[in-house]
Amino acid sequence: MEHKTLILVQCRDAVGLVSRIAHVLAGYNMNITAMREFVDEGEQQFFARIACDGSEAPDDARLLTALKEVLPEGADVLVNPRPEKRVAVLVTREYHCLGDILTRHFFKTLGAQVCCVIGNHDHLRKFTEQFSIPFHHISHEGRSQEEFERLILEALAPYEPDYLVLAKFMRILSPEFVERYRERIINIHHSFLPAFIGAHPYRRAFERGVKLIGATAHFVTSELDQGPIIAQQTTPVNHNFSVKDMVIAGKGIERAVLSKALQLVFQDRVFVLKNKTVVFE
Amino acid sequence: MEHKTLILVQCRDAVGLVSRIAHVLAGYNMNITAMREFVDEGEQQFFARIACDGSEAPDDARLLTALKEVLPEGADVLVNPRPEKRVAVLVTREYHCLGDILTRHFFKTLGAQVCCVIGNHDHLRKFTEQFSIPFHHISHEGRSQEEFERLILEALAPYEPDYLVLAKFMRILSPEFVERYRERIINIHHSFLPAFIGAHPYRRAFERGVKLIGATAHFVTSELDQGPIIAQQTTPVNHNFSVKDMVIAGKGIERAVLSKALQLVFQDRVFVLKNKTVVFE
Amino acid sequence: MEHKTLILVQCRDAVGLVSRIAHVLAGYNMNITAMREFVDEGEQQFFARIACDGSEAPDDARLLTALKEVLPEGADVLVNPRPEKRVAVLVTREYHCLGDILTRHFFKTLGAQVCCVIGNHDHLRKFTEQFSIPFHHISHEGRSQEEFERLILEALAPYEPDYLVLAKFMRILSPEFVERYRERIINIHHSFLPAFIGAHPYRRAFERGVKLIGATAHFVTSELDQGPIIAQQTTPVNHNFSVKDMVIAGKGIERAVLSKALQLVFQDRVFVLKNKTVVFE
Amino acid sequence: MEHKTLILVQCRDAVGLVSRIAHVLAGYNMNITAMREFVDEGEQQFFARIACDGSEAPDDARLLTALKEVLPEGADVLVNPRPEKRVAVLVTREYHCLGDILTRHFFKTLGAQVCCVIGNHDHLRKFTEQFSIPFHHISHEGRSQEEFERLILEALAPYEPDYLVLAKFMRILSPEFVERYRERIINIHHSFLPAFIGAHPYRRAFERGVKLIGATAHFVTSELDQGPIIAQQTTPVNHNFSVKDMVIAGKGIERAVLSKALQLVFQDRVFVLKNKTVVFE
Repeated sequence: MEHKTLILVQCRDAVGLVSRIAHVLAGYNMNITAMREFVDEGEQQFFARIACDGSEAPDDARLLTALKEVLPEGADVLVNPRPEKRVAVLVTREYHCLGDILTRHFFKTLGAQVCCVIGNHDHLRKFTEQFSIPFHHISHEGRSQEEFERLILEALAPYEPDYLVLAKFMRILSPEFVERYRERIINIHHSFLPAFIGAHPYRRAFERGVKLIGATAHFVTSELDQGPIIAQQTTPVNHNFSVKDMVIAGKGIERAVLSKALQLVFQDRVFVLKNKTVVFE
Repeated sequence: MEHKTLILVQCRDAVGLVSRIAHVLAGYNMNITAMREFVDEGEQQFFARIACDGSEAPDDARLLTALKEVLPEGADVLVNPRPEKRVAVLVTREYHCLGDILTRHFFKTLGAQVCCVIGNHDHLRKFTEQFSIPFHHISHEGRSQEEFERLILEALAPYEPDYLVLAKFMRILSPEFVERYRERIINIHHSFLPAFIGAHPYRRAFERGVKLIGATAHFVTSELDQGPIIAQQTTPVNHNFSVKDMVIAGKGIERAVLSKALQLVFQDRVFVLKNKTVVFE
Repeated sequence: MEHKTLILVQCRDAVGLVSRIAHVLAGYNMNITAMREFVDEGEQQFFARIACDGSEAPDDARLLTALKEVLPEGADVLVNPRPEKRVAVLVTREYHCLGDILTRHFFKTLGAQVCCVIGNHDHLRKFTEQFSIPFHHISHEGRSQEEFERLILEALAPYEPDYLVLAKFMRILSPEFVERYRERIINIHHSFLPAFIGAHPYRRAFERGVKLIGATAHFVTSELDQGPIIAQQTTPVNHNFSVKDMVIAGKGIERAVLSKALQLVFQDRVFVLKNKTVVFE
Repeated sequence: MEHKTLILVQCRDAVGLVSRIAHVLAGYNMNITAMREFVDEGEQQFFARIACDGSEAPDDARLLTALKEVLPEGADVLVNPRPEKRVAVLVTREYHCLGDILTRHFFKTLGAQVCCVIGNHDHLRKFTEQFSIPFHHISHEGRSQEEFERLILEALAPYEPDYLVLAKFMRILSPEFVERYRERIINIHHSFLPAFIGAHPYRRAFERGVKLIGATAHFVTSELDQGPIIAQQTTPVNHNFSVKDMVIAGKGIERAVLSKALQLVFQDRVFVLKNKTVVFE
């Protein structure tokens, strides 16, 4: 059992889908070693992530065709998606998430290739460059949103990234920009959404007197902080915490949540349906 | 060291408050065994909870006077507040929080005396009465809010409760009612506030696709779900959770959070300042 | 889609098991609505929990035979296991776990039928009987272990329980007793096993100065506190916690962990292999 | 209120200690802004961490003398301990804790000065040096324990570190070495101690089938993994986790726990008494 194949399916639900898929795989002499399947009954959608072993590597294109033949029309099927994604990181001034990403990248445990870092400030250049990653400073100051985003898109183009990671990038992207990387932009927001959407969540958490603060990793959509949530975590706070203390405590979970979300996405464990995710952990 | 004294102080901050209080206590030959102190610098407020031991019991009234003399004008000081509070519980149909409260009460570990249960449905009568606690059914149906609340107040009056616990009481109380029990009504809300204020938080959590659900115990004020938060907790959910599954998972933390909040309040560990709490756990 | 069928499979792993099972189900016109599958590669064991919908109810016995025909020899297969298990609860003096079980039972949300409570002290009789559940007091004092257990077995016999729940039952059962209810006795231990096996875990946690205490629900085997773990949880403590404070904080998680473990077992989500569990949450 | 003073006290308990300390501070016109106090009643020990504000900076030595005069003989008192500790980090091959420490150091948020990294393998040299921190490779291979430790001590000497951080340093230090840095060596152990003391905790966690794995930061003493615990955390695992998956999940909490413990120690919030800590978070 040497050749591993990963199959991702998202389609309209129907009777016997697992049986049909399993039948195709058996025909290729492939053994299912790990299978995750979910039916969203409200939306009538079927999701599956299937890891197989086989003594021979299948022809991916033929296997894809064979699977599509037994699945409902319009099914999204992927056979062996690119294992190591290409990633661009957008930052402003905070380093904790970027530091985690670049350190994992350095030791080849990120599960992705960081192709560049883009900052709307120049603050993180030295830190980035000491990891031998290109850093592009594209300031938003004195520029229209349109020009700012055009420059970012131009900088990104040669790298052909699969995903953009907003690792504490404190600018809002236009719907047009977001559409260009639809379901491929991952943001970390420093609150347990939907609480404290928008700016200054820690200040507002402090003012509200919450006993928990949180962080949320989500795909970016055209509506601010409303995209499909990938991962969330909270950590206790109390009356002793100033806003600054909350910011410090929050950085720890922001980093942990983004790190977990990236791992899930890079391993092809996250499916998107409308404004929600199916995550096969 | 036999006589234990508990002292609670909330007042305007000033230089040397701890020293002044400690000096008074030393004069009574009392040793501080556990002291919690907090200064809210923004609000310039001083909070302290001081447990003392002494070979003789002090005269509480004289000690109170002595403390007030060294503290800023208008200081709130309590010496030996009633150790076992009197509590009335308001419910609708859900039993999980009430079950916890009555069970603890039965075994004398609640730290409070449950004097009655009031339900706007009759659903929990049998369960309550088998614990030998009076149950009053006061329906809201066919009644004005004013009449409904007047009947509750009349039912409560003979019990003279220190606190009202809204243990999944699904009616909104008027500002007039709330004012009658100012900072003495504790509610459990089934979301991590300020997310999902108001009705149907689990349905809205499901629709938003959150990866955490939560519960919040708070003092009730005239603004819905906006009162000072005492305790909060979250628990993970995922795409497999239907609304009903979230309701079930949520009951566990609702019960845990309310239980913890009640313990803190009944042990005089919670201070309120404006819309926030100071909790000396 | 009206008739729901639940199928549990545990067997030696082999190529194409999912395909074979799915093929059988398709032959019965049954649609898989939720499937969980796991292969323990070290042990070469296959586990599956399959929920199906069909327009007609299958003949359970024929379906079982059909499944066994396509599965490796010796496969454990269950079709529609009894949905509401029969449960006997064994206790000593502590009430928190029993209170949770009896309250859920009262409101029919336990997912099981409590047939009796057996106490080696009489302490919890009144509490149990007010829920109209029979209470048997079988003291261990002045009796050999053999006689003590014989009396318990005799008391249990007429109820024919599927499971025994040790809800803070502070006696050790003999290997012979355990064998009689093999993989059917569930215990709650008041530590995060394997830390603090045996007596007085909170005292030992206090002495070790841990910053977390925990609770573990597990199946009982002949080796003390060594059986397959179903669920575990921890909660923070600090230097302020006396042994007694730890006991109080621990009760909360003991109850939560046992409650969760029972729910998982009663829903047929827990498989046992040697000293470990596979839990399809 | 400009001059901030931090005072740490650990001494035998006695009547009126808070009063006496507060009296001294009032004499210096210093206002207590944050005070944490704890009495270990079993050990009869008093602990306090007192932050003060004053319009003038006190003479630290005179204040120290004044405090000692009112405290029991043998009291440990510190006035304004060095705010930025000097730290040496010992590593083997794993990078996740070191990466966190060096990144925080780079951005000046560690609260300490990393003076050097010592590795018993050369694996982390490049990573360390790109942060401009000296890296010393001192192999244990082909050397006696005595010689190995002598070389480490010689390498450390010129840096005069306040603390040694064992950031996944996989060698056991001798009691003689530990004594040289008594209560100044901080280790991260990859289990929730006291479970899985010693080697291969994740393999043993896997074999035991636990549902939680953990990490523990503790001071090193001459007994392996038995020193005073500073911080602990756990994270859920399940039957799907291989040993390797546990190692990956564990790295996240190892890093978080060590990071938290270092923050607490570097802010002078951790006191040691025998084999336990008092932590004023």
